[in-house]
Amino acid sequence: MITGKNYIGYTASATGTRHFKTVNPVLNEENEYRFTEATAAEVDAAARLAAAAFPVYKAVSGKERAVFLHRIADAIDALGDTLTEVYCRESGLPPARAVGERGRTTGQLRAFAQMLSEGDWVDATIDTALPDRMPAPKPDLRKMSIPIGPVAVFGASNFPLAYSAAGGDTASALAAGCPVIVKAHPMHAGTSELVAAAILKAAQETGMPDGVFSHLLAAGREVGIQLVKHPAVKGVGFTGSVQGGRALFDAAAQRPEPIPVFAEMGSLNPVIVLPSALRADAGKWAAQLTASITTGTGQFCTKPGLVIGLEGELFAQFTAALAQQIEGVPPGCMLHPDIHRNYERGRQTLSAQEGATVLAQAAGTPPPNFAPQQLLRVPGKAFLSNPALHAEVFGPFALLIECADMGELRQVVESLDGQLTGTLLGDAAEAAAHPAIVSALQNRVGRLIFNGVPTGVEVCPSMSHGGPYPASTDSRFTAVGIHAVRRWVRPCSFQNWPDELLPPELQNSNPLNILRLVNNQFSKDAL
Amino acid sequence: MITGKNYIGYTASATGTRHFKTVNPVLNEENEYRFTEATAAEVDAAARLAAAAFPVYKAVSGKERAVFLHRIADAIDALGDTLTEVYCRESGLPPARAVGERGRTTGQLRAFAQMLSEGDWVDATIDTALPDRMPAPKPDLRKMSIPIGPVAVFGASNFPLAYSAAGGDTASALAAGCPVIVKAHPMHAGTSELVAAAILKAAQETGMPDGVFSHLLAAGREVGIQLVKHPAVKGVGFTGSVQGGRALFDAAAQRPEPIPVFAEMGSLNPVIVLPSALRADAGKWAAQLTASITTGTGQFCTKPGLVIGLEGELFAQFTAALAQQIEGVPPGCMLHPDIHRNYERGRQTLSAQEGATVLAQAAGTPPPNFAPQQLLRVPGKAFLSNPALHAEVFGPFALLIECADMGELRQVVESLDGQLTGTLLGDAAEAAAHPAIVSALQNRVGRLIFNGVPTGVEVCPSMSHGGPYPASTDSRFTAVGIHAVRRWVRPCSFQNWPDELLPPELQNSNPLNILRLVNNQFSKDAL
Repeated sequence: MITGKNYIGYTASATGTRHFKTVNPVLNEENEYRFTEATAAEVDAAARLAAAAFPVYKAVSGKERAVFLHRIADAIDALGDTLTEVYCRESGLPPARAVGERGRTTGQLRAFAQMLSEGDWVDATIDTALPDRMPAPKPDLRKMSIPIGPVAVFGASNFPLAYSAAGGDTASALAAGCPVIVKAHPMHAGTSELVAAAILKAAQETGMPDGVFSHLLAAGREVGIQLVKHPAVKGVGFTGSVQGGRALFDAAAQRPEPIPVFAEMGSLNPVIVLPSALRADAGKWAAQLTASITTGTGQFCTKPGLVIGLEGELFAQFTAALAQQIEGVPPGCMLHPDIHRNYERGRQTLSAQEGATVLAQAAGTPPPNFAPQQLLRVPGKAFLSNPALHAEVFGPFALLIECADMGELRQVVESLDGQLTGTLLGDAAEAAAHPAIVSALQNRVGRLIFNGVPTGVEVCPSMSHGGPYPASTDSRFTAVGIHAVRRWVRPCSFQNWPDELLPPELQNSNPLNILRLVNNQFSKDAL
Repeated sequence: MITGKNYIGYTASATGTRHFKTVNPVLNEENEYRFTEATAAEVDAAARLAAAAFPVYKAVSGKERAVFLHRIADAIDALGDTLTEVYCRESGLPPARAVGERGRTTGQLRAFAQMLSEGDWVDATIDTALPDRMPAPKPDLRKMSIPIGPVAVFGASNFPLAYSAAGGDTASALAAGCPVIVKAHPMHAGTSELVAAAILKAAQETGMPDGVFSHLLAAGREVGIQLVKHPAVKGVGFTGSVQGGRALFDAAAQRPEPIPVFAEMGSLNPVIVLPSALRADAGKWAAQLTASITTGTGQFCTKPGLVIGLEGELFAQFTAALAQQIEGVPPGCMLHPDIHRNYERGRQTLSAQEGATVLAQAAGTPPPNFAPQQLLRVPGKAFLSNPALHAEVFGPFALLIECADMGELRQVVESLDGQLTGTLLGDAAEAAAHPAIVSALQNRVGRLIFNGVPTGVEVCPSMSHGGPYPASTDSRFTAVGIHAVRRWVRPCSFQNWPDELLPPELQNSNPLNILRLVNNQFSKDAL
């Protein structure tokens, strides 16, 4: 049941006077349920409760936290068709996507639970004492990762489940031992509330402290900024626009005590098409790129927004095929009227730039909130001289850059800001012949892809989802995969600490049987 | 030989018109050599050269980088007595300290070289493909740490070697594969130049690209701020005051592309004295704390600045013994007249606070730049209500806090900002009886010490040197030990990348024989 209320820990609360509703973009009408925005007092209460819960929750063992995460996954599964219906009503996305995204969400939770059960993740490092060392004895030192404190998580517009209330940020922060305060994305507040209730149910059933999770509602930005500025909050996770992420980053950096913000923001996801790829299979790449650009109405952070190639016969044939295929895709519904408006504004701005040629443009007038896909082409020189052409257009849009030669192509790559991904299509010999281009691409991305497309972010330990700014505000971390937990932990050393008072991860007997770096050798042995 | 010039890569440069000299604090007179401040054009040239060196240097293998770091260590050793003499002349510190600190510096370089030779540090993570997985095939994904780009390093006033030109920040950044631009600390610019020349000699002998290391001179802050704002600089390492570190942090956060700043700044290093410690051996703790407070004239970031206990007979006897011993230590020379001035201002400000009682105060008038050690006492209540008493006094000074009971002691701990260290003196049973105090202490520190003193920062993998703000600007990293390299690297994933084009760390055959997480199991096996 959707109450429209905030959850301050286990307590539903709606003392505010500002309200908002979500929109069904397919029907282009408001959904019935009404949400009450969190007041400043409610934000403060949630942050204080999280701070009070922190010492209790950080002392909960990894195995118990694993049970909690498994229980959350089960509770989300138990939401069944209700969740799917609300999800679709609030996003315009099809039921199959809801089910797929739910599987990704519960899969992430279970992967973190598995990580906690195994226990190796804490980076346990031990150097034993050398009492007779000259000129001074060496103490016994043992180090492991501990949680940083309460984390604020902002739901993403384009993943109502996998990057929202129980998404990767929440799962990784709870795994770390950090209480979480979610600021729901207003576009799918109902979906978010259903998931929040599932998390709270799991928390209560597994005896977690009140305040381990809270859920706040707001249509505007004040609640989020207040949360980020609150002294009790020690870290922030965000997925969304550069504008929104940067505002949170700035607020966090300007605090008396600055706190880390991991914001995953914009990315053009350049695809470099080498001639060998077109000689081998231009048709396949046109088909794969068409799907990657238009699936989910192009509303993925890894949608390929730039396709870079060398002018000439091969590339002309390829772009013609790509244009034809893209025009053949029926327009899809976008997540929200605001997102649709931004898409229209973005593609029109880019189309109007000097040197831009429209190659593909869906015909006719689509229904409200449906996005006509578009393909533009510009010469490399135009791209290099016009920053406006570097803007991300969120939706089923891509810009083809036609370079005069490999030198210009290299300049185009070197002109790019940070990206989540960079893709190379071609054969290995041709890739090997251009190490400077590959190196420049690597310096700008979090993930390199060979002969594939960037959409489809695999959830596994070797996934790096992040990248140099503005792909993220801190390229040193990933937002996807178990290593996402590292954003919310810090090392703590124990010097000459009594064995019985050490966390089990660092005790002599290694009771958790985890891998530890002991005197510079990895080992699971007891000391 | 000290030239007084900047090094823009391999080229000495002194085009500026602003000059400064260092001071011999023992003699209270300027040293003879004159330094030329870097101009804006020189800063820009160094940053551009570092950016040009980056793609070359990041491609240098770990084993070759290890040879480079070993060669730096050898070149510093070869500076011999010249280095010791200049070090002492610029710091007022004794020759034995110079020799000890040189050993620490070269030891750090060799530890990073060892880390590079072994190769495990890159956090190699592999998930192999599942081409038949439904509904979509799983790609082959492989992840490892890669360098972030050129790093600016700021020399610390109190460690002319171990935290300066070739200190931990430089060693870890060079190990990561990042070119380094050092802004020398103006108080020991000559020492810094000698070390810089040694680094450049080693770089040339091992064939490193021009720009892998540069060395800039300045007495003011403009050069440092320009460096931090330069688009080519991608990370910053700093050790010094909160004021200085925060200025760099703010400049970095306000860039169009924000960059990570690891600034190690202020710390009070609280020592909690439980009654059991005083019952067992009050005299020993008075002696050890006296040494920890006064060694090096108290100019260590880990000097214990707060000693917290319970009022009563035991604590009164202990503080009397501590006061007597501290008064018996002859005043030492401080690093520089400015540092001495700040010390005098700081201790006088604290002495003047309501409730503060002077317990120990060196008698007589010491020579210029020599610091009379001081011990103050305040009631817990005064400390809790007066933020001025939370200020760090850099020098041989400590504040005793006398708490009415364990409840007040806990409040005192909970009132503290972030710290590098927190120490507990007592027996294990008494420590176990106060978990809330231990937990609150842990939440505020990077290193917990049991029955010891915080000075003496062991260089080993299990050392965490850092902590919540203002101890550092990012508690998620350590500045000491091989894991300090993590500040300068980011994960990069390779998806379906051809084996022959992968870095050796990720190739099927595991040619470097490193430990890798393969399909969620740690292994050194080939695939």
